[in-house]
Amino acid sequence: MFSANTYTHRRAELMHRVGRGLIFLLGNELSPMNYQDNTFPFRQDSNFLYYIGLDHPHLAAILDTETGECILFGDELSLDDIIWMGPQPPLTEQALVVGIQEVQPFDLLLEVLTAARKQNRAIHFLPPYRAENKINLAYWLHLPMLELTSSASIPLIQAIVAQRSVKTTEEIAEMDKALHTTKAMYLAAMKQTRPGIKEAQLAGIAEGIAVAGGGNLAYPIIMTVNGQVLHNHHHHNTLKSGQLVLADMGAETAMHYAADITRTWPVDGSFTQQQKEIYQIVLDAQMAGIAAMRPGLRNLDAHLTAAKVITNGLKSLGLMQGDTDEIVQAGAHALFFPHGLGHMIGLDVHDMEDLGEKYTGYHEGLERSTQFGLRSLRMARTLEPGFVMTIEPGIYFIPELIDRWQQEGRFNQYINYAALAAYRGFSGIRIEDDVLVTQGEPKVLGPGIPKEIGEIEALRS
Amino acid sequence: MFSANTYTHRRAELMHRVGRGLIFLLGNELSPMNYQDNTFPFRQDSNFLYYIGLDHPHLAAILDTETGECILFGDELSLDDIIWMGPQPPLTEQALVVGIQEVQPFDLLLEVLTAARKQNRAIHFLPPYRAENKINLAYWLHLPMLELTSSASIPLIQAIVAQRSVKTTEEIAEMDKALHTTKAMYLAAMKQTRPGIKEAQLAGIAEGIAVAGGGNLAYPIIMTVNGQVLHNHHHHNTLKSGQLVLADMGAETAMHYAADITRTWPVDGSFTQQQKEIYQIVLDAQMAGIAAMRPGLRNLDAHLTAAKVITNGLKSLGLMQGDTDEIVQAGAHALFFPHGLGHMIGLDVHDMEDLGEKYTGYHEGLERSTQFGLRSLRMARTLEPGFVMTIEPGIYFIPELIDRWQQEGRFNQYINYAALAAYRGFSGIRIEDDVLVTQGEPKVLGPGIPKEIGEIEALRS
Repeated sequence: MFSANTYTHRRAELMHRVGRGLIFLLGNELSPMNYQDNTFPFRQDSNFLYYIGLDHPHLAAILDTETGECILFGDELSLDDIIWMGPQPPLTEQALVVGIQEVQPFDLLLEVLTAARKQNRAIHFLPPYRAENKINLAYWLHLPMLELTSSASIPLIQAIVAQRSVKTTEEIAEMDKALHTTKAMYLAAMKQTRPGIKEAQLAGIAEGIAVAGGGNLAYPIIMTVNGQVLHNHHHHNTLKSGQLVLADMGAETAMHYAADITRTWPVDGSFTQQQKEIYQIVLDAQMAGIAAMRPGLRNLDAHLTAAKVITNGLKSLGLMQGDTDEIVQAGAHALFFPHGLGHMIGLDVHDMEDLGEKYTGYHEGLERSTQFGLRSLRMARTLEPGFVMTIEPGIYFIPELIDRWQQEGRFNQYINYAALAAYRGFSGIRIEDDVLVTQGEPKVLGPGIPKEIGEIEALRS
Repeated sequence: MFSANTYTHRRAELMHRVGRGLIFLLGNELSPMNYQDNTFPFRQDSNFLYYIGLDHPHLAAILDTETGECILFGDELSLDDIIWMGPQPPLTEQALVVGIQEVQPFDLLLEVLTAARKQNRAIHFLPPYRAENKINLAYWLHLPMLELTSSASIPLIQAIVAQRSVKTTEEIAEMDKALHTTKAMYLAAMKQTRPGIKEAQLAGIAEGIAVAGGGNLAYPIIMTVNGQVLHNHHHHNTLKSGQLVLADMGAETAMHYAADITRTWPVDGSFTQQQKEIYQIVLDAQMAGIAAMRPGLRNLDAHLTAAKVITNGLKSLGLMQGDTDEIVQAGAHALFFPHGLGHMIGLDVHDMEDLGEKYTGYHEGLERSTQFGLRSLRMARTLEPGFVMTIEPGIYFIPELIDRWQQEGRFNQYINYAALAAYRGFSGIRIEDDVLVTQGEPKVLGPGIPKEIGEIEALRS
């Protein structure tokens, strides 16, 4: 946990930015897995963590922007709770640690909110994503379930995006910690890779290290020989000689700051010539993307820069042809690179995605594209010092997509479909790092995880 | 997955037992972690798995008890789904694998349910535990959120409890598989135990093995030097010489059958004399509990039998005194053994807890006790061949509870509070196995995980 000062200042700035009415921050509840009491590991809401810092279920806070008052709502433990879950400091004591003086029982929330509604005070709340909180919010605020998101407070969302986008030194230190754990996950998984081992075994090794690090996974592990499937959470394949392993995984620290790293490496100790050629194009695109992480530049332009490197590379292999700018403008490269270059990362792996990418990644005057590929770019806006971005280009050979486009004769002038036959079973390659935008050079965070072809092959030998 | 025959027969028997109206089985949705698209690993509803077998989100089934018809509701994948999540067989093909001929789009569910309501047909549904399903059910069935559980179908619950309580040979084989993985988790964690290692590191080792086994954890791991805290999910302590480690953990297989095992072992290679004495009492109680797993006997009596062994053991150490039957009748032993002997296990670690322990563990004429300790017994009813029960007695020294009882002068005649001072930092010991009730001898399932004092000490040396 950071100091009381950190949380107090964050809240003061938030109240100042929102300016009027009440700010209602709702923590998460435990979510049941297969019955009420067998729950998924508790994950606190990231906005609640950012402003309140307390990491237990069944908490809420109301900040009065006009009086500066902050009330924490939550219940003290009973003796039964202590027997089953262990002793904890009283909530009043925990509240002081994050700079909050007033604590009220959770059930008083309804009364306070109802009184505010009667006084016609603005109640700023965030769009709920947990179904438990949807049910509660609808009940407390007398709102139809389907209107909760549209009734959420845009001023509150915008104020939070402005604050959480810029990471402080203490936040960067946490993200570095997550990356150290993530490096250990990668080194162990890479070293254990061999024909005959299962994806699930490598995923298990990595997940175990994330948990041993005192936190958890920031998101479900991708560990697959089918890298062309972008969000593949199945781990039932057995690795075969000649294949590539694509892993996309990251730890989160005990304080819930995330890492998000992707690496692709050969099942055998070394890449084939074909794999090397594609790998180097992706790595060149990634380095170009990293170099573009400069304040004042748009992430959209970094995306297009990486897309051009990919296009040029595929042209050099005879898989594409034509003018690079035209190809990227038309979106033909998206057959091979159908997703965005990256997104913000912080307390969430897709930072603040719950607030809406409309606000976190775009703004009025910079609307999201509807073009296949570019429409998957989560963040397009201008970079500022303190932003942390993932840079994660990839090249994939997706048989279903290739077949569809070829049948439709799509971008025949740019894509050499005949040459693609030799890549049909290639799968995919993605390389991803987490990059801090500074006043000067972009900084790849963490201890450095092997990504050059030579480094990876050396690690395996 | 089992054969189509298995699922078809299960459904036929269910329809026969319920006898009239429609049976509505609702699968689970993905549940968000910290934003909509960062979800917890998918866990299908166990009743859905039992009767339908399909392990994907966003599915439902309606069984017409009068015509025998079964309709699966779900949506086919789009090309976008395939790019992001990989190709899958069409739903119609998947349905055939579990013996279902008819598939309809998920959205048609509302129409079918509305038509049935208009015809005044009974719609049997189960009490929802996932908030996503509560929202959906309330909408589909025009029911207030707070009346969903009370409106759930008791005939359906009772029919399911009757079926799922008795495990078949193919189910036992799955549970054996889960126990093999769980044994590997234990052996690795026990062998890595030493002063200076963190609880989180041992938990990570074990969790990694569960994932590597191709399934997942059946429930969050307990791995603690504070065994006296019954459901302790914190793993931040560093192990110290002289302490005990209590682990309560189990894998679930890819088909989601669970294991549930507890072991307690010393941080050093061997137990102290004091630890040995308490350990042996718990082990004796566990063996007595196992021996009581006989058809026709009540689990309540097995619980009381184990409680008496614990009481006698504590009397022999001078921690209790008086008539054993009187002590157990009064509930004084619950200071040390405040929970139940065990519960059913199968697809859920607390099998069918979502249906209500009122039905899974008790019945009319056998109501749950309100006495401290006994009220935590999840299952009291008469055992039948095919039941799988956990047997998990424990002895704990819970400072907060001891202080409270001592201040209240509670059971002064039975408890030697003065002698307890020497056990204040002892923590707790629990030993748990999964036991199949047969026509003859009770069968401890799985490959056998060390639990004798000698075995544990030998493993560590």
